[in-house]
Amino acid sequence: MMNTAAINHRPDSEFAYLYQKNLMHIRLKTAKNDVKKVELLHGDTYTLGDEKWYQTPLVMEKYLTTEQHDYWVVATSEPYKRMAYGFKVTGLDDSEVFYGDHGCFPADKQYLEMPNNYFRMPYFHEADRFKAPTWVKNTVWYQIFPERFANGDQSNDPKGTLPWGSKNPDRQDFFGGDLQGVLNHLDHLTELGINGLYFCPIFKAHSNHKYDTIDYFEIDPDFGDKVLFKKLVEECHQRGIKVMLDAVFNHMGDTSPQWQDVLQKGAASKFADWFHINEFPVSYKEGANFEDAYDITYDVFAFTPHMPKLNTANPEVKKYLLEIAEYWIKEFDIDAWRLDVANEVDHAFWREFRQVCDAAKDDFYILGEIWHSSQSWLNGDEFTAVMNYAYTDAISGAFVKKEITLAKMVSEINRQLMLYRDQTNQVQFNVLDSHDTPRILTEAKNDKDLMKQVEAFTYLQPGVPCIYYGDEFAMTGKMDPDCRKCMVWEKSEQDLDMFDFFKKLVKFRRDFAEILSAGQMVWESVDLAKQQIVLVRKLADKQIFGYFNLAENETTVNIKGEIILSNGFRADKKLGPKGFVITKEN
Amino acid sequence: MMNTAAINHRPDSEFAYLYQKNLMHIRLKTAKNDVKKVELLHGDTYTLGDEKWYQTPLVMEKYLTTEQHDYWVVATSEPYKRMAYGFKVTGLDDSEVFYGDHGCFPADKQYLEMPNNYFRMPYFHEADRFKAPTWVKNTVWYQIFPERFANGDQSNDPKGTLPWGSKNPDRQDFFGGDLQGVLNHLDHLTELGINGLYFCPIFKAHSNHKYDTIDYFEIDPDFGDKVLFKKLVEECHQRGIKVMLDAVFNHMGDTSPQWQDVLQKGAASKFADWFHINEFPVSYKEGANFEDAYDITYDVFAFTPHMPKLNTANPEVKKYLLEIAEYWIKEFDIDAWRLDVANEVDHAFWREFRQVCDAAKDDFYILGEIWHSSQSWLNGDEFTAVMNYAYTDAISGAFVKKEITLAKMVSEINRQLMLYRDQTNQVQFNVLDSHDTPRILTEAKNDKDLMKQVEAFTYLQPGVPCIYYGDEFAMTGKMDPDCRKCMVWEKSEQDLDMFDFFKKLVKFRRDFAEILSAGQMVWESVDLAKQQIVLVRKLADKQIFGYFNLAENETTVNIKGEIILSNGFRADKKLGPKGFVITKEN
Repeated sequence: MMNTAAINHRPDSEFAYLYQKNLMHIRLKTAKNDVKKVELLHGDTYTLGDEKWYQTPLVMEKYLTTEQHDYWVVATSEPYKRMAYGFKVTGLDDSEVFYGDHGCFPADKQYLEMPNNYFRMPYFHEADRFKAPTWVKNTVWYQIFPERFANGDQSNDPKGTLPWGSKNPDRQDFFGGDLQGVLNHLDHLTELGINGLYFCPIFKAHSNHKYDTIDYFEIDPDFGDKVLFKKLVEECHQRGIKVMLDAVFNHMGDTSPQWQDVLQKGAASKFADWFHINEFPVSYKEGANFEDAYDITYDVFAFTPHMPKLNTANPEVKKYLLEIAEYWIKEFDIDAWRLDVANEVDHAFWREFRQVCDAAKDDFYILGEIWHSSQSWLNGDEFTAVMNYAYTDAISGAFVKKEITLAKMVSEINRQLMLYRDQTNQVQFNVLDSHDTPRILTEAKNDKDLMKQVEAFTYLQPGVPCIYYGDEFAMTGKMDPDCRKCMVWEKSEQDLDMFDFFKKLVKFRRDFAEILSAGQMVWESVDLAKQQIVLVRKLADKQIFGYFNLAENETTVNIKGEIILSNGFRADKKLGPKGFVITKEN
Repeated sequence: MMNTAAINHRPDSEFAYLYQKNLMHIRLKTAKNDVKKVELLHGDTYTLGDEKWYQTPLVMEKYLTTEQHDYWVVATSEPYKRMAYGFKVTGLDDSEVFYGDHGCFPADKQYLEMPNNYFRMPYFHEADRFKAPTWVKNTVWYQIFPERFANGDQSNDPKGTLPWGSKNPDRQDFFGGDLQGVLNHLDHLTELGINGLYFCPIFKAHSNHKYDTIDYFEIDPDFGDKVLFKKLVEECHQRGIKVMLDAVFNHMGDTSPQWQDVLQKGAASKFADWFHINEFPVSYKEGANFEDAYDITYDVFAFTPHMPKLNTANPEVKKYLLEIAEYWIKEFDIDAWRLDVANEVDHAFWREFRQVCDAAKDDFYILGEIWHSSQSWLNGDEFTAVMNYAYTDAISGAFVKKEITLAKMVSEINRQLMLYRDQTNQVQFNVLDSHDTPRILTEAKNDKDLMKQVEAFTYLQPGVPCIYYGDEFAMTGKMDPDCRKCMVWEKSEQDLDMFDFFKKLVKFRRDFAEILSAGQMVWESVDLAKQQIVLVRKLADKQIFGYFNLAENETTVNIKGEIILSNGFRADKKLGPKGFVITKEN
């Protein structure tokens, strides 16, 4: 019997959305290997003459499959930009049901004619369509942790600055990295080929990571000043590099004047309602380390007493933060905001934030830091994308950590692609590592071939990749603070083979941005016995093939097309362990 | 084998939402009769010391059941207002799975400890909580179609006004109904016991139904003027009656100055972008009747060339409509807007509309006209409720039209209750009939007992009922225009038995508003063989029982508790066909 209880659809969501003007994408979820055929019945929501809404069946394509579900997709349009629709589902057992807004019915005309038994997309509004700036799809990002990228100006070094790279960093170390250092090394970035720079926070703050903001309107003096930052943005733009700043709006630093005022005046402080304070006077008991505390009488980020949570529902706080959002766009022409701990701030705030950014600059990119499913932030009125850890975790979980099988990885990738609209998937921010994770090479136990393999696989995905500073020189690092080591600028310490690899990888991603963004995902082979995977990206008559050998031994692959990039692949068609080859046809 | 493919949950939706401050409601959907036990594993999203997020299992209650699914529910809170959670699901076959943000895993500790394998409600924001004004739950609405309720001032009758009730209405008839007529009959409404008045449009328009607005800032002169309307609102408020007006913002009338300007000046009109015009000059070919046309070169409501669709993405249009929204609240103190064809206007517009209304008046109610599933409008930032046709259709489909079985009705009711948050269900607008449908007595083939039965059943539901003017006197009417007959004010023509019934019904709904709103739904008996249904509403130790006989013959019912209201119930415990009895305990 067909598993009708597993059939699922949600109108006006990632299951039914405007992809382009008057082009609807419709998805249906069914139990895996349970359904033979799905037809979309669709028509206008109003009847004119003898027409019926269900007169036009459209066969849906069985697209992605997870461990438990098959996803069926189709694209369609309507002459009057409004649609009544439902699904005729035929099981492998040849049973048929009609699935619509009132659940499952027998697939008989009488039920189709019962009023409102269908789903609706009542009008195709461009205003509500999820739109992403087109430049993002063509971007390869590079993430800079400013305190550790390069020290270009020793005059602004904080007291106690340690010699560059003289040790592995501890939590409270300073090494003198700054904006001049970035400016000095733009040629390096251009050579690498990246065209987007994502800066960890650069505003005035106490710590080396600057996530404990003191003043959002000032560049941290350890990093430089506004004149320098403006110059940096201009230089980047001249080189075709977009600039993204980190907005830490979930919380403030406890050395900020606002929090200091609360500490001094308690409930009488004019900033008392800027935070979530449960009891005055504010207090906490110290925990095992600087960042953990007990019995905190105010809401904080995690259990860090030094990062009191901002009350973003307070109109004054809103106004303050939204002015900041606008200021750095208008005055410094930045292209994107990355939003720290974005999931813990209210939707109402982010909706206003989006409007402010959209008004300030066309084609602005808003990237939320969210590590879990993010549908409710990605409906078009809040973020453009999230940091796609959930997606890349599946990749590194299979390729690197060997925690999940290849089958589970493919299932997870497919499941997550079906959590979001296609245009969203194309701009998701795919990070294999960052300042918040161990470096990928360390995860790979220093196996550089494995690192190259997982990078190549990640660059084959929809969504835009990001290089964490130093990965291009094969830097290592465990969980922070170890992943925040000083960038290696000594030629002798740089892994130039890895650098060469990254240059090719970035070029590949940029050369084939269109197909890698919008191309279909075709899992040509997921061979668990051989530990091999062949992923094809397909757009019209163009195809890109990726062959990956995850086995311990070399294997023979019969590649199609022309080789673009490879590692461990020999002329005799042998693909070594941890090897890959990427080819193209047309 | 457990049907794991049917397990479903969506974080930050009606499946996981703040019900009250720091009180989360969590739901899980599983295949019907497939699962023995569901536990919610939950904890803080950050770890402190040795704590694990999954250490607190909470057994979920199996609550509502549909033809295909069981819904499991639980209410919980968290000390730090943030939650990591997932579900341990035990099948009837005793198999166990863990279901979380990355799908199903074996219910082993190792999978629970894999990072981010859980769902999250990252922070419990009051700003994002769906809130409904409390007065709505205590309201019984009464819908007035102003042209047909009462003619209180013959001096404003339009030319060609027909004598009151002299014929059944045709599409273009006028009978002279007006606001003075409503004022004159407020005693009737007070006697009936209603405490909310929903007016079909009263703004200046061409037709008798006034859905083709000419000027949103003017009361239609056939109905009266602003002074009179202000007086009417004040009189209503003095009697404890709330006032809701109809906002027709999807389209305008074609006799409006804006559209007339487009007709005259074409693309050069300053209002050209106020509408969705596909081709200039605007034109259409007449169809079979006044409201249907072919080859319309602009978007319209349905196929009515006289109702050109407004471009609500145009900032000028937005400003214009939002000023209207605010004007009638601020100047006339109305309590609610009912939004015509609300589903065809963009979400972006409605979000701003909501903000304007909330800013203008506390506890404002926004009711969207949507006939289908409405999740994306009911997340708290757009409407408070929708006209709940989808819900009442299931009721009349089983009780009155006999199109669906009692089992299907219960399934549909339960399914729809699980489409929305509990606080939403409590303010949904339950209409058995309206100006857009046949009257319920006509649907019931003039069977007054059946009408009483279906009304009683509807009043037992969560959500607020609405009486369509004249139903209290047992008026009849087929699909419009027939359902828009003149109100019967001749005592001899009024069904006073029905009026008496409605008085009791309204009193019942108002006396027991709390339990009828927030009480649990308990389907004590759905007996398909006997065609009997027993629905219990339960809140703490209070219970209300509803016994309904849908069979052709009388039956014996062993009622519990004290009788509140009944029809066809005798002292010997016999319940006649189409009879019902409502009782209470405690």
